[in-house]
Amino acid sequence: MNKSQLVEQIRQKQSYLCVGLDPSLEKIPSHLLKEKDPVFAFNKVIIDETLDFAVAYKPNTAFYEALGPSGWESLEKTLEYLPSSVLKIADAKRGDIGNTSTLYAKAFFETLKADAITVAPYMGKDSVAPFLEFEGKWVILLALTSNTGSLDFQLFQDTSGTQLFEEVLKKSQTWGTVDNLMYVVGATRGEKIADVRKIIPDHFLLVPGVGAQGGSLQDVAKYGMNDNVGLLVNSSRGILYASSGVDFGKAARNEAHKLQEEMEQSLQEYGR
Amino acid sequence: MNKSQLVEQIRQKQSYLCVGLDPSLEKIPSHLLKEKDPVFAFNKVIIDETLDFAVAYKPNTAFYEALGPSGWESLEKTLEYLPSSVLKIADAKRGDIGNTSTLYAKAFFETLKADAITVAPYMGKDSVAPFLEFEGKWVILLALTSNTGSLDFQLFQDTSGTQLFEEVLKKSQTWGTVDNLMYVVGATRGEKIADVRKIIPDHFLLVPGVGAQGGSLQDVAKYGMNDNVGLLVNSSRGILYASSGVDFGKAARNEAHKLQEEMEQSLQEYGR
Repeated sequence: MNKSQLVEQIRQKQSYLCVGLDPSLEKIPSHLLKEKDPVFAFNKVIIDETLDFAVAYKPNTAFYEALGPSGWESLEKTLEYLPSSVLKIADAKRGDIGNTSTLYAKAFFETLKADAITVAPYMGKDSVAPFLEFEGKWVILLALTSNTGSLDFQLFQDTSGTQLFEEVLKKSQTWGTVDNLMYVVGATRGEKIADVRKIIPDHFLLVPGVGAQGGSLQDVAKYGMNDNVGLLVNSSRGILYASSGVDFGKAARNEAHKLQEEMEQSLQEYGR
Repeated sequence: MNKSQLVEQIRQKQSYLCVGLDPSLEKIPSHLLKEKDPVFAFNKVIIDETLDFAVAYKPNTAFYEALGPSGWESLEKTLEYLPSSVLKIADAKRGDIGNTSTLYAKAFFETLKADAITVAPYMGKDSVAPFLEFEGKWVILLALTSNTGSLDFQLFQDTSGTQLFEEVLKKSQTWGTVDNLMYVVGATRGEKIADVRKIIPDHFLLVPGVGAQGGSLQDVAKYGMNDNVGLLVNSSRGILYASSGVDFGKAARNEAHKLQEEMEQSLQEYGR
Protein backbone atom coordinates (compact mmCIF):
# COMPACT_ATOMS: atom_id res chain seq x y z
CA MET A 1 0.00 0.00 0.00
CA ASN A 2 1.54 3.31 -1.06
CA LYS A 3 1.14 6.72 0.52
CA SER A 4 -1.61 8.07 -1.73
CA GLN A 5 -3.64 4.88 -1.26
CA LEU A 6 -3.28 5.23 2.50
CA VAL A 7 -4.32 8.89 2.44
CA GLU A 8 -7.29 7.98 0.25
CA GLN A 9 -8.41 5.34 2.75
CA ILE A 10 -8.11 7.85 5.57
CA ARG A 11 -10.21 10.43 3.68
CA GLN A 12 -12.79 7.80 2.81
CA LYS A 13 -13.18 6.32 6.29
CA GLN A 14 -12.59 9.70 7.98
CA SER A 15 -10.29 7.82 10.30
CA TYR A 16 -6.58 7.37 10.87
CA LEU A 17 -7.09 4.57 13.36
CA CYS A 18 -4.61 1.71 13.62
CA VAL A 19 -5.82 -1.26 15.63
CA GLY A 20 -3.09 -3.01 17.62
CA LEU A 21 -3.68 -6.76 17.36
CA ASP A 22 -2.04 -7.85 20.60
CA PRO A 23 -4.05 -10.84 21.80
CA SER A 24 -3.03 -12.73 24.89
CA LEU A 25 -4.64 -16.01 25.92
CA GLU A 26 -5.17 -14.70 29.46
CA LYS A 27 -7.30 -11.83 28.23
CA ILE A 28 -9.32 -13.02 25.26
CA PRO A 29 -12.89 -14.14 26.03
CA SER A 30 -12.83 -17.63 27.51
CA HIS A 31 -15.37 -19.08 25.07
CA LEU A 32 -12.75 -18.72 22.32
CA LEU A 33 -10.26 -20.98 24.08
CA LYS A 34 -12.01 -24.07 22.72
CA GLU A 35 -11.30 -22.92 19.14
CA LYS A 36 -8.47 -24.63 17.25
CA ASP A 37 -6.63 -21.32 16.93
CA PRO A 38 -8.08 -19.00 19.62
CA VAL A 39 -5.73 -16.15 18.73
CA PHE A 40 -6.74 -16.10 15.09
CA ALA A 41 -10.42 -16.58 15.99
CA PHE A 42 -10.17 -13.53 18.25
CA ASN A 43 -8.33 -11.42 15.67
CA LYS A 44 -10.81 -12.35 12.95
CA VAL A 45 -13.75 -11.00 14.94
CA ILE A 46 -11.84 -7.86 15.91
CA ILE A 47 -10.89 -7.22 12.27
CA ASP A 48 -14.42 -7.85 10.96
CA GLU A 49 -15.97 -5.55 13.54
CA THR A 50 -13.50 -2.67 13.27
CA LEU A 51 -12.78 -2.64 9.54
CA ASP A 52 -15.24 0.18 8.87
CA PHE A 53 -13.32 2.45 11.22
CA ALA A 54 -9.65 1.49 10.83
CA VAL A 55 -7.09 2.02 8.07
CA ALA A 56 -4.24 0.03 9.60
CA TYR A 57 -3.69 -3.04 11.79
CA LYS A 58 -0.62 -3.65 13.85
CA PRO A 59 0.09 -7.07 15.34
CA ASN A 60 2.94 -6.86 17.85
CA THR A 61 5.08 -9.92 17.23
CA ALA A 62 5.81 -10.50 20.93
CA PHE A 63 2.25 -11.68 21.52
CA TYR A 64 2.64 -14.34 18.83
CA GLU A 65 6.22 -15.39 19.59
CA ALA A 66 5.25 -16.03 23.20
CA LEU A 67 3.11 -18.91 21.89
CA GLY A 68 5.90 -20.64 19.96
CA PRO A 69 5.54 -21.95 16.38
CA SER A 70 1.73 -22.01 16.61
CA GLY A 71 1.78 -18.31 17.47
CA TRP A 72 3.79 -17.66 14.35
CA GLU A 73 1.08 -19.47 12.39
CA SER A 74 -1.63 -17.32 13.99
CA LEU A 75 0.32 -14.25 12.95
CA GLU A 76 0.64 -15.54 9.39
CA LYS A 77 -3.09 -16.24 9.19
CA THR A 78 -3.94 -12.84 10.65
CA LEU A 79 -1.84 -10.95 8.12
CA GLU A 80 -3.31 -13.07 5.34
CA TYR A 81 -6.84 -12.35 6.51
CA LEU A 82 -6.39 -8.57 6.50
CA PRO A 83 -7.70 -7.01 3.26
CA SER A 84 -5.35 -5.08 0.96
CA SER A 85 -7.29 -1.88 1.71
CA VAL A 86 -5.55 -1.56 5.09
CA LEU A 87 -1.91 -1.07 6.01
CA LYS A 88 -0.52 -4.23 7.61
CA ILE A 89 2.12 -3.28 10.15
CA ALA A 90 4.34 -5.87 11.81
CA ASP A 91 5.28 -4.28 15.11
CA ALA A 92 8.52 -6.18 15.46
CA LYS A 93 11.07 -3.50 16.46
CA ARG A 94 13.80 -5.39 14.63
CA GLY A 95 17.21 -4.17 13.50
CA ASP A 96 20.52 -5.97 13.03
CA ILE A 97 23.67 -5.84 10.88
CA GLY A 98 22.96 -5.51 7.17
CA ASN A 99 22.68 -9.10 5.92
CA THR A 100 20.63 -10.02 8.98
CA SER A 101 18.21 -7.12 8.56
CA THR A 102 17.69 -8.32 4.98
CA LEU A 103 16.56 -11.65 6.41
CA TYR A 104 14.15 -9.94 8.80
CA ALA A 105 12.83 -7.92 5.87
CA LYS A 106 12.23 -11.13 3.93
CA ALA A 107 10.56 -12.73 6.94
CA PHE A 108 8.09 -9.88 7.35
CA PHE A 109 7.65 -8.51 3.84
CA GLU A 110 7.82 -11.73 1.81
CA THR A 111 6.95 -14.66 4.07
CA LEU A 112 4.38 -12.82 6.19
CA LYS A 113 3.39 -10.26 3.53
CA ALA A 114 3.28 -7.28 5.89
CA ASP A 115 3.30 -3.81 4.31
CA ALA A 116 5.36 -2.21 7.06
CA ILE A 117 7.65 -3.10 9.94
CA THR A 118 8.74 -1.15 12.99
CA VAL A 119 12.54 -0.91 13.26
CA ALA A 120 14.83 0.17 16.12
CA PRO A 121 17.47 2.76 15.12
CA TYR A 122 20.27 2.01 17.60
CA MET A 123 22.48 0.11 15.12
CA GLY A 124 22.31 2.86 12.51
CA LYS A 125 21.92 3.13 8.77
CA ASP A 126 23.06 -0.30 7.61
CA SER A 127 20.60 -1.93 10.01
CA VAL A 128 17.68 0.08 8.60
CA ALA A 129 18.50 0.49 4.89
CA PRO A 130 17.96 -3.19 3.95
CA PHE A 131 14.27 -2.85 4.87
CA LEU A 132 13.99 0.22 2.63
CA GLU A 133 15.09 -1.71 -0.44
CA PHE A 134 11.79 -3.57 -0.66
CA GLU A 135 9.58 -1.91 -3.28
CA GLY A 136 6.22 -0.78 -1.95
CA LYS A 137 7.08 -1.58 1.68
CA TRP A 138 7.47 0.73 4.66
CA VAL A 139 9.90 1.13 7.54
CA ILE A 140 8.45 2.68 10.68
CA LEU A 141 11.46 3.82 12.67
CA LEU A 142 11.35 4.28 16.44
CA ALA A 143 12.02 7.93 17.23
CA LEU A 144 10.30 8.98 20.46
CA THR A 145 8.46 6.17 22.15
CA SER A 146 5.57 6.38 24.59
CA ASN A 147 7.07 4.55 27.57
CA THR A 148 8.83 6.10 30.56
CA GLY A 149 12.09 4.46 29.45
CA SER A 150 12.07 6.79 26.45
CA LEU A 151 13.56 9.38 28.82
CA ASP A 152 16.67 7.27 29.40
CA PHE A 153 18.41 7.67 26.05
CA GLN A 154 16.06 9.28 23.51
CA LEU A 155 16.46 12.71 25.13
CA PHE A 156 20.27 12.39 25.42
CA GLN A 157 21.52 15.74 24.18
CA ASP A 158 24.62 16.76 22.22
CA THR A 159 26.62 20.00 22.52
CA SER A 160 24.36 21.83 20.05
CA GLY A 161 21.24 20.91 22.00
CA THR A 162 20.08 18.22 19.59
CA GLN A 163 18.44 15.30 21.37
CA LEU A 164 19.01 11.72 20.25
CA PHE A 165 15.48 11.29 18.86
CA GLU A 166 15.98 14.48 16.82
CA GLU A 167 19.30 13.17 15.54
CA VAL A 168 17.52 9.94 14.53
CA LEU A 169 14.90 11.97 12.63
CA LYS A 170 17.52 14.14 10.93
CA LYS A 171 19.91 11.41 9.85
CA SER A 172 17.40 8.78 8.85
CA GLN A 173 15.49 11.18 6.58
CA THR A 174 18.22 10.73 3.99
CA TRP A 175 17.93 6.93 4.13
CA GLY A 176 14.37 6.79 2.84
CA THR A 177 11.62 9.04 1.58
CA VAL A 178 8.17 10.14 2.72
CA ASP A 179 6.93 7.24 0.60
CA ASN A 180 8.70 4.42 2.46
CA LEU A 181 9.62 5.78 5.88
CA MET A 182 7.41 6.66 8.84
CA TYR A 183 8.28 7.29 12.48
CA VAL A 184 6.99 6.11 15.83
CA VAL A 185 6.24 9.12 18.02
CA GLY A 186 4.42 8.47 21.28
CA ALA A 187 1.22 10.32 22.16
CA THR A 188 2.28 10.57 25.78
CA ARG A 189 4.69 13.28 24.63
CA GLY A 190 1.99 15.44 22.98
CA GLU A 191 3.93 18.70 23.02
CA LYS A 192 6.98 16.97 21.58
CA ILE A 193 5.09 16.17 18.40
CA ALA A 194 5.42 19.85 17.43
CA ASP A 195 9.23 19.53 17.72
CA VAL A 196 9.10 16.41 15.59
CA ARG A 197 7.09 18.18 12.91
CA LYS A 198 9.75 20.92 12.66
CA ILE A 199 12.23 18.27 11.49
CA ILE A 200 9.93 16.02 9.46
CA PRO A 201 6.89 18.03 8.33
CA ASP A 202 5.85 15.54 5.65
CA HIS A 203 6.42 12.04 6.99
CA PHE A 204 3.68 9.86 8.39
CA LEU A 205 3.82 9.28 12.15
CA LEU A 206 2.63 6.14 13.88
CA VAL A 207 1.43 7.26 17.27
CA PRO A 208 0.96 4.76 20.10
CA GLY A 209 0.05 5.67 23.64
CA VAL A 210 -3.48 7.03 23.16
CA GLY A 211 -5.91 5.41 25.59
CA ALA A 212 -4.45 2.94 28.11
CA GLN A 213 -1.13 4.80 28.13
CA GLY A 214 -2.78 8.19 28.66
CA GLY A 215 -2.06 10.28 25.54
CA SER A 216 -4.57 12.78 24.14
CA LEU A 217 -5.90 12.33 20.60
CA GLN A 218 -6.68 16.03 20.32
CA ASP A 219 -3.09 17.00 21.11
CA VAL A 220 -1.77 14.50 18.61
CA ALA A 221 -4.02 15.94 15.88
CA LYS A 222 -3.27 19.53 16.81
CA TYR A 223 0.50 19.13 16.75
CA GLY A 224 0.91 16.28 14.32
CA MET A 225 -1.51 16.63 11.41
CA ASN A 226 -0.12 17.75 8.07
CA ASP A 227 -1.43 18.29 4.51
CA ASN A 228 -1.77 14.56 3.94
CA VAL A 229 -3.07 13.92 7.44
CA GLY A 230 0.29 12.26 8.22
CA LEU A 231 -1.00 10.36 11.22
CA LEU A 232 -1.82 6.82 12.22
CA VAL A 233 -2.96 6.59 15.80
CA ASN A 234 -2.87 3.20 17.43
CA SER A 235 -5.21 1.75 20.00
CA SER A 236 -4.85 -1.80 21.26
CA ARG A 237 -6.19 -2.72 24.69
CA GLY A 238 -9.00 -0.14 24.66
CA ILE A 239 -10.52 -1.86 21.63
CA LEU A 240 -9.49 -5.50 22.09
CA TYR A 241 -10.67 -5.82 25.66
CA ALA A 242 -13.66 -3.47 25.70
CA SER A 243 -15.63 -6.52 26.83
CA SER A 244 -14.48 -9.91 28.05
CA GLY A 245 -17.77 -11.58 27.16
CA VAL A 246 -19.27 -13.06 24.01
CA ASP A 247 -20.14 -9.49 22.94
CA PHE A 248 -16.43 -8.54 22.68
CA GLY A 249 -16.74 -7.96 18.93
CA LYS A 250 -19.58 -5.47 19.25
CA ALA A 251 -17.83 -3.76 22.16
CA ALA A 252 -14.66 -3.47 20.09
CA ARG A 253 -16.71 -2.06 17.23
CA ASN A 254 -18.18 0.59 19.53
CA GLU A 255 -14.77 1.64 20.82
CA ALA A 256 -13.33 1.84 17.30
CA HIS A 257 -16.37 3.83 16.19
CA LYS A 258 -15.94 6.29 19.05
CA LEU A 259 -12.30 6.84 18.09
CA GLN A 260 -13.25 7.24 14.44
CA GLU A 261 -15.78 9.92 15.36
CA GLU A 262 -13.16 11.77 17.38
CA MET A 263 -10.78 11.48 14.46
CA GLU A 264 -13.39 12.72 12.00
CA GLN A 265 -13.86 15.78 14.16
CA SER A 266 -10.11 16.38 14.37
CA LEU A 267 -9.81 16.05 10.59
CA GLN A 268 -12.36 18.85 10.24
CA GLU A 269 -10.61 20.96 12.84
CA TYR A 270 -6.95 20.45 11.95
CA GLY A 271 -7.01 18.85 8.50
CA ARG A 272 -5.87 20.84 5.51
CA MET B 1 23.75 -21.16 33.47
CA ASN B 2 25.20 -18.76 36.04
CA LYS B 3 28.41 -16.78 35.89
CA SER B 4 30.62 -19.13 37.88
CA GLN B 5 29.46 -22.09 35.79
CA LEU B 6 30.28 -20.17 32.63
CA VAL B 7 33.73 -19.21 33.88
CA GLU B 8 34.33 -22.82 34.89
CA GLN B 9 33.45 -24.02 31.39
CA ILE B 10 35.81 -21.45 29.89
CA ARG B 11 38.67 -22.55 32.15
CA GLN B 12 37.97 -26.18 31.40
CA LYS B 13 37.78 -25.87 27.62
CA GLN B 14 40.39 -23.10 27.54
CA SER B 15 38.04 -21.32 25.20
CA TYR B 16 35.61 -18.43 25.26
CA LEU B 17 34.22 -19.22 21.84
CA CYS B 18 30.58 -18.60 21.00
CA VAL B 19 29.40 -20.23 17.78
CA GLY B 20 26.82 -18.18 15.87
CA LEU B 21 24.18 -20.58 14.53
CA ASP B 22 23.03 -18.55 11.53
CA PRO B 23 22.15 -21.12 8.88
CA SER B 24 20.70 -20.04 5.56
CA LEU B 25 19.31 -22.51 3.05
CA GLU B 26 21.35 -20.92 0.25
CA LYS B 27 24.60 -21.61 2.05
CA ILE B 28 24.29 -24.93 3.83
CA PRO B 29 25.69 -27.98 1.98
CA SER B 30 23.23 -29.06 -0.69
CA HIS B 31 23.10 -32.70 0.41
CA LEU B 32 21.28 -31.53 3.56
CA LEU B 33 18.40 -30.04 1.61
CA LYS B 34 16.74 -33.44 1.26
CA GLU B 35 16.49 -33.74 5.06
CA LYS B 36 13.11 -33.13 6.67
CA ASP B 37 14.53 -30.19 8.63
CA PRO B 38 17.73 -29.12 6.82
CA VAL B 39 18.37 -26.23 9.21
CA PHE B 40 18.28 -28.42 12.30
CA ALA B 41 20.26 -31.17 10.54
CA PHE B 42 22.95 -28.60 9.77
CA ASN B 43 22.97 -27.14 13.28
CA LYS B 44 23.17 -30.59 14.85
CA VAL B 45 26.37 -31.45 12.98
CA ILE B 46 27.87 -28.02 13.73
CA ILE B 47 27.08 -28.40 17.44
CA ASP B 48 28.41 -31.97 17.65
CA GLU B 49 31.64 -31.03 15.92
CA THR B 50 32.37 -27.80 17.78
CA LEU B 51 31.21 -28.68 21.29
CA ASP B 52 34.74 -29.47 22.49
CA PHE B 53 35.83 -25.96 21.67
CA ALA B 54 32.84 -23.73 22.37
CA VAL B 55 31.18 -22.55 25.59
CA ALA B 56 28.24 -20.72 24.03
CA TYR B 57 25.97 -20.93 20.98
CA LYS B 58 24.08 -18.02 19.52
CA PRO B 59 21.32 -18.58 16.99
CA ASN B 60 20.30 -15.27 15.40
CA THR B 61 16.52 -15.37 15.21
CA ALA B 62 16.39 -13.61 11.81
CA PHE B 63 17.69 -16.74 10.09
CA TYR B 64 14.85 -18.79 11.55
CA GLU B 65 12.06 -16.24 11.18
CA ALA B 66 12.87 -15.89 7.48
CA LEU B 67 11.63 -19.47 7.11
CA GLY B 68 8.23 -18.91 8.73
CA PRO B 69 6.69 -21.23 11.36
CA SER B 70 8.95 -24.15 10.36
CA GLY B 71 11.98 -21.95 11.03
CA TRP B 72 10.66 -21.28 14.49
CA GLU B 73 10.46 -25.04 15.00
CA SER B 74 14.06 -25.48 13.86
CA LEU B 75 15.09 -22.85 16.38
CA GLU B 76 13.17 -24.63 19.13
CA LYS B 77 14.80 -27.98 18.28
CA THR B 78 18.25 -26.38 18.12
CA LEU B 79 17.95 -24.81 21.56
CA GLU B 80 16.61 -28.08 22.93
CA TYR B 81 19.50 -30.02 21.45
CA LEU B 82 22.19 -27.81 23.01
CA PRO B 83 23.51 -29.32 26.26
CA SER B 84 23.17 -27.47 29.56
CA SER B 85 26.97 -27.11 29.75
CA VAL B 86 26.86 -24.27 27.19
CA LEU B 87 25.26 -20.84 27.31
CA LYS B 88 22.31 -20.68 24.91
CA ILE B 89 21.99 -17.16 23.54
CA ALA B 90 18.99 -16.07 21.49
CA ASP B 91 20.36 -13.25 19.35
CA ALA B 92 17.01 -11.53 18.95
CA LYS B 93 17.80 -7.85 19.63
CA ARG B 94 14.33 -7.36 21.08
CA GLY B 95 13.04 -4.54 23.26
CA ASP B 96 9.56 -3.04 23.65
CA ILE B 97 7.36 -1.37 26.27
CA GLY B 98 7.27 -3.21 29.59
CA ASN B 99 4.40 -5.68 29.27
CA THR B 100 5.51 -6.54 25.74
CA SER B 101 9.12 -7.16 26.77
CA THR B 102 7.78 -9.55 29.40
CA LEU B 103 6.15 -11.52 26.57
CA TYR B 104 9.40 -11.60 24.61
CA ALA B 105 11.15 -12.78 27.76
CA LYS B 106 8.61 -15.59 28.13
CA ALA B 107 8.99 -16.49 24.45
CA PHE B 108 12.75 -16.84 24.70
CA PHE B 109 13.36 -17.90 28.29
CA GLU B 110 10.33 -20.12 28.90
CA THR B 111 9.03 -21.38 25.54
CA LEU B 112 12.42 -21.65 23.83
CA LYS B 113 14.46 -22.18 27.02
CA ALA B 114 17.31 -19.89 26.04
CA ASP B 115 19.69 -18.79 28.82
CA ALA B 116 20.28 -15.33 27.40
CA ILE B 117 18.81 -12.86 24.94
CA THR B 118 20.30 -9.85 23.19
CA VAL B 119 18.29 -6.68 23.81
CA ALA B 120 18.36 -3.24 22.13
CA PRO B 121 18.59 -0.31 24.59
CA TYR B 122 16.84 2.47 22.63
CA MET B 123 13.56 2.27 24.56
CA GLY B 124 15.27 2.48 27.94
CA LYS B 125 14.94 0.85 31.33
CA ASP B 126 11.36 -0.40 31.26
CA SER B 127 12.05 -2.20 27.97
CA VAL B 128 15.06 -4.03 29.44
CA ALA B 129 14.13 -4.62 33.08
CA PRO B 130 11.40 -7.23 32.38
CA PHE B 131 14.05 -9.57 30.94
CA LEU B 132 16.14 -9.16 34.09
CA GLU B 133 13.37 -10.44 36.30
CA PHE B 134 13.83 -14.02 35.12
CA GLU B 135 15.90 -15.95 37.66
CA GLY B 136 19.04 -17.48 36.21
CA LYS B 137 18.65 -15.79 32.82
CA TRP B 138 20.82 -13.18 31.12
CA VAL B 139 20.27 -9.97 29.19
CA ILE B 140 22.99 -9.10 26.70
CA LEU B 141 22.49 -5.42 25.97
CA LEU B 142 23.68 -3.80 22.75
CA ALA B 143 26.29 -1.17 23.60
CA LEU B 144 28.78 -0.73 20.76
CA THR B 145 28.02 -2.90 17.76
CA SER B 146 30.42 -4.09 15.06
CA ASN B 147 28.70 -2.65 11.98
CA THR B 148 29.48 0.67 10.26
CA GLY B 149 26.04 1.97 11.28
CA SER B 150 27.24 1.90 14.89
CA LEU B 151 28.87 5.26 14.09
CA ASP B 152 25.50 6.87 13.37
CA PHE B 153 24.10 7.12 16.88
CA GLN B 154 26.22 5.08 19.32
CA LEU B 155 28.98 7.72 19.30
CA PHE B 156 26.53 10.63 19.71
CA GLN B 157 28.16 12.76 22.38
CA ASP B 158 26.77 14.95 25.16
CA THR B 159 28.22 18.18 26.57
CA SER B 160 30.43 16.33 29.06
CA GLY B 161 31.96 14.20 26.29
CA THR B 162 30.01 11.05 27.16
CA GLN B 163 29.07 9.05 24.09
CA LEU B 164 25.71 7.30 23.81
CA PHE B 165 27.19 3.80 24.16
CA GLU B 166 28.95 4.94 27.35
CA GLU B 167 25.69 6.38 28.66
CA VAL B 168 24.04 3.02 27.93
CA LEU B 169 26.79 1.25 29.89
CA LYS B 170 26.58 3.68 32.80
CA LYS B 171 22.80 3.78 33.19
CA SER B 172 22.06 0.14 32.55
CA GLN B 173 24.58 -1.06 35.14
CA THR B 174 22.10 -0.17 37.84
CA TRP B 175 19.33 -2.20 36.17
CA GLY B 176 21.07 -5.55 36.53
CA THR B 177 24.20 -7.08 38.00
CA VAL B 178 27.35 -8.78 36.70
CA ASP B 179 25.40 -12.00 37.22
CA ASN B 180 22.54 -11.28 34.81
CA LEU B 181 23.73 -8.55 32.45
CA MET B 182 26.33 -8.69 29.68
CA TYR B 183 27.05 -6.26 26.85
CA VAL B 184 27.58 -6.54 23.11
CA VAL B 185 30.80 -4.78 22.16
CA GLY B 186 32.05 -5.25 18.61
CA ALA B 187 35.56 -6.49 17.89
CA THR B 188 35.86 -4.11 14.96
CA ARG B 189 36.32 -1.36 17.54
CA GLY B 190 39.26 -3.06 19.32
CA GLU B 191 40.68 0.05 20.97
CA LYS B 192 37.23 1.05 22.20
CA ILE B 193 37.06 -2.07 24.36
CA ALA B 194 39.53 -0.40 26.72
CA ASP B 195 37.09 2.53 27.11
CA VAL B 196 34.29 0.06 27.78
CA ARG B 197 36.34 -1.68 30.48
CA LYS B 198 36.83 1.64 32.32
CA ILE B 199 33.06 1.81 32.84
CA ILE B 200 32.26 -1.88 33.31
CA PRO B 201 35.38 -3.70 34.48
CA ASP B 202 33.53 -6.78 35.69
CA HIS B 203 30.73 -7.54 33.24
CA PHE B 204 30.96 -10.18 30.58
CA LEU B 205 31.19 -8.89 27.00
CA LEU B 206 29.79 -10.69 23.98
CA VAL B 207 32.07 -9.74 21.12
CA PRO B 208 30.95 -10.23 17.52
CA GLY B 209 32.94 -9.12 14.50
CA VAL B 210 35.99 -11.38 14.74
CA GLY B 211 36.68 -13.09 11.42
CA ALA B 212 34.39 -12.18 8.49
CA GLN B 213 33.88 -8.68 9.89
CA GLY B 214 37.61 -8.11 10.39
CA GLY B 215 38.13 -7.74 14.15
CA SER B 216 41.30 -9.01 15.89
CA LEU B 217 41.03 -11.65 18.61
CA GLN B 218 44.33 -10.56 20.14
CA ASP B 219 43.10 -6.95 20.54
CA VAL B 220 39.88 -8.15 22.09
CA ALA B 221 41.78 -10.29 24.64
CA LYS B 222 44.32 -7.55 25.35
CA TYR B 223 41.76 -4.83 26.03
CA GLY B 224 38.80 -6.87 27.18
CA MET B 225 39.91 -9.73 29.42
CA ASN B 226 39.30 -9.40 33.16
CA ASP B 227 39.76 -11.53 36.29
CA ASN B 228 36.95 -13.86 35.29
CA VAL B 229 37.92 -13.82 31.61
CA GLY B 230 34.81 -11.71 30.97
CA LEU B 231 34.68 -12.48 27.26
CA LEU B 232 32.63 -14.47 24.84
CA VAL B 233 33.86 -14.06 21.27
CA ASN B 234 31.50 -15.03 18.52
CA SER B 235 32.27 -16.55 15.16
CA SER B 236 29.54 -17.53 12.71
CA ARG B 237 30.30 -17.69 9.00
CA GLY B 238 33.98 -18.62 9.46
CA ILE B 239 32.94 -21.83 11.21
CA LEU B 240 29.59 -22.64 9.59
CA TYR B 241 30.77 -22.31 6.01
CA ALA B 242 34.38 -23.47 6.30
CA SER B 243 33.39 -26.05 3.68
CA SER B 244 30.32 -26.35 1.49
CA GLY B 245 30.81 -30.09 0.96
CA VAL B 246 29.90 -33.21 2.92
CA ASP B 247 32.96 -32.53 5.09
CA PHE B 248 31.45 -29.30 6.46
CA GLY B 249 31.33 -30.71 9.97
CA LYS B 250 35.02 -31.58 10.08
CA ALA B 251 35.89 -28.24 8.49
CA ALA B 252 33.82 -26.42 11.11
CA ARG B 253 35.57 -28.46 13.83
CA ASN B 254 38.97 -27.40 12.48
CA GLU B 255 38.02 -23.73 12.43
CA ALA B 256 36.61 -23.88 15.94
CA HIS B 257 39.73 -25.71 17.12
CA LYS B 258 41.98 -23.03 15.59
CA LEU B 259 40.04 -20.32 17.40
CA GLN B 260 40.18 -22.29 20.65
CA GLU B 261 43.96 -22.57 20.36
CA GLU B 262 44.26 -18.84 19.80
CA MET B 263 42.02 -18.28 22.79
CA GLU B 264 44.05 -20.66 24.96
CA GLN B 265 47.17 -18.67 24.11
CA SER B 266 45.42 -15.38 24.92
CA LEU B 267 44.22 -16.79 28.24
CA GLN B 268 47.84 -17.53 29.13
CA GLU B 269 48.99 -14.12 27.98
CA TYR B 270 46.23 -11.86 29.32
CA GLY B 271 44.33 -14.03 31.77
CA ARG B 272 44.59 -13.36 35.47
